[in-house]
Amino acid sequence: MKNLILASTSTLHGQDYLEYILPTLKEHFKGCTEILFIPYARPGGISHDEYTQLAKKAFEKIGLNVKGIHEFDNAADAVAGAEGIFTGGGNTFLLVEQLYYHNLLTPLKDAIEKGTPYLGTSAGTNIGGLTMKTTNDMPIVYPPSFKTLGFVPFNINPHYLDPDPNSTHKGETRETRIKEFHQFNTPPVVGLREGSWLEVKDQNIILKGELSARIFKAGKEPYEVEPETLFNDLS
Amino acid sequence: MKNLILASTSTLHGQDYLEYILPTLKEHFKGCTEILFIPYARPGGISHDEYTQLAKKAFEKIGLNVKGIHEFDNAADAVAGAEGIFTGGGNTFLLVEQLYYHNLLTPLKDAIEKGTPYLGTSAGTNIGGLTMKTTNDMPIVYPPSFKTLGFVPFNINPHYLDPDPNSTHKGETRETRIKEFHQFNTPPVVGLREGSWLEVKDQNIILKGELSARIFKAGKEPYEVEPETLFNDLS
Repeated sequence: MKNLILASTSTLHGQDYLEYILPTLKEHFKGCTEILFIPYARPGGISHDEYTQLAKKAFEKIGLNVKGIHEFDNAADAVAGAEGIFTGGGNTFLLVEQLYYHNLLTPLKDAIEKGTPYLGTSAGTNIGGLTMKTTNDMPIVYPPSFKTLGFVPFNINPHYLDPDPNSTHKGETRETRIKEFHQFNTPPVVGLREGSWLEVKDQNIILKGELSARIFKAGKEPYEVEPETLFNDLS
Repeated sequence: MKNLILASTSTLHGQDYLEYILPTLKEHFKGCTEILFIPYARPGGISHDEYTQLAKKAFEKIGLNVKGIHEFDNAADAVAGAEGIFTGGGNTFLLVEQLYYHNLLTPLKDAIEKGTPYLGTSAGTNIGGLTMKTTNDMPIVYPPSFKTLGFVPFNINPHYLDPDPNSTHKGETRETRIKEFHQFNTPPVVGLREGSWLEVKDQNIILKGELSARIFKAGKEPYEVEPETLFNDLS
């Protein structure tokens, strides 16, 4: 009974927070009045309160209230009782460290299994994969494990970026990094470009948005898939 | 008695491996005949042998032989007996995981304390800082700790990249990532641009190369420092 949106990014260039995906979210969270927001990833180091205000301002536009998980006495109870859940982006190491610290992995899995609608953006999408080993983030804190929620049977690389043919920079391209991942890990990786998201409904995982996604499998050449592609066989 | 070169990158755009820094290395490794190469970071997933061949080819140009640490029966003994040590770039998570696996942290610290000349590039430079928490790499393996060798009393961000004012991409800039680091960690961070390196001689740490470096301190505005700046007070 899964019902998830795993989005590459919260924000498109020149737009407001969540603007591009609000019509979709209105449908996704139909029947909810309040969304539980998980602000642990703290983009740019902003506070839980500041981050929750940002989410609140966006969701107001579709008539939904937002409450931060840090406002509850018991985080696990907040997840269990949530009508809908949104995990925002920021630093994936910090997010995962906090999810373990607050013992939220099992409550989150249980909530998703029983059908609580979930939205992840960026780091909040990363944790929907099997592990956080394909995050782009800096390891600013040491989480007790890189294992994440496994809402989908593969890994996700949000904010996927194609190599810049004009770059003179010698840092690794995203594709090189994912190739290194596959030297030591077998799960496929979905490179989700900004503006794309995965819609997970029951057993169906579908690519949404206007852009293609790039699929990486261990020992294979990466390839592109078009919107509306069904990922059910990807694992 | 430290004698280190910690370089941002092995290679500059359009040049051969180590080409820009070979004249400096000839002086740095004077008196050595063979360099111990630590290929654990495996850039792009290449093998230890392939990577060692790459280093060998470059050091041949300055009359030095190279032997990979994987060619020795005992890695710790190889470090203890080395005339000079070079740790190449690639994936910092993998490098650190392997350094812990082979119990090499103490042998490396001991070798550096007794004055064995050391060269690090990229990941091999990251491990010279207090922790690997300011690496740019993807967390493809889970090391037992993010603590590294602390040859210098701060952290390093190699391949430092200025924000691109024309970018429409919403992934975090390097500066934002380091700002997030400083929400949870106090050590300063030296953003080393490609072509720059730190020269560590005894207690002196000096910025070398033609470019300025960017210094980040917790709670302060970042600032630029020029080549030949002494970093002795940075900690």
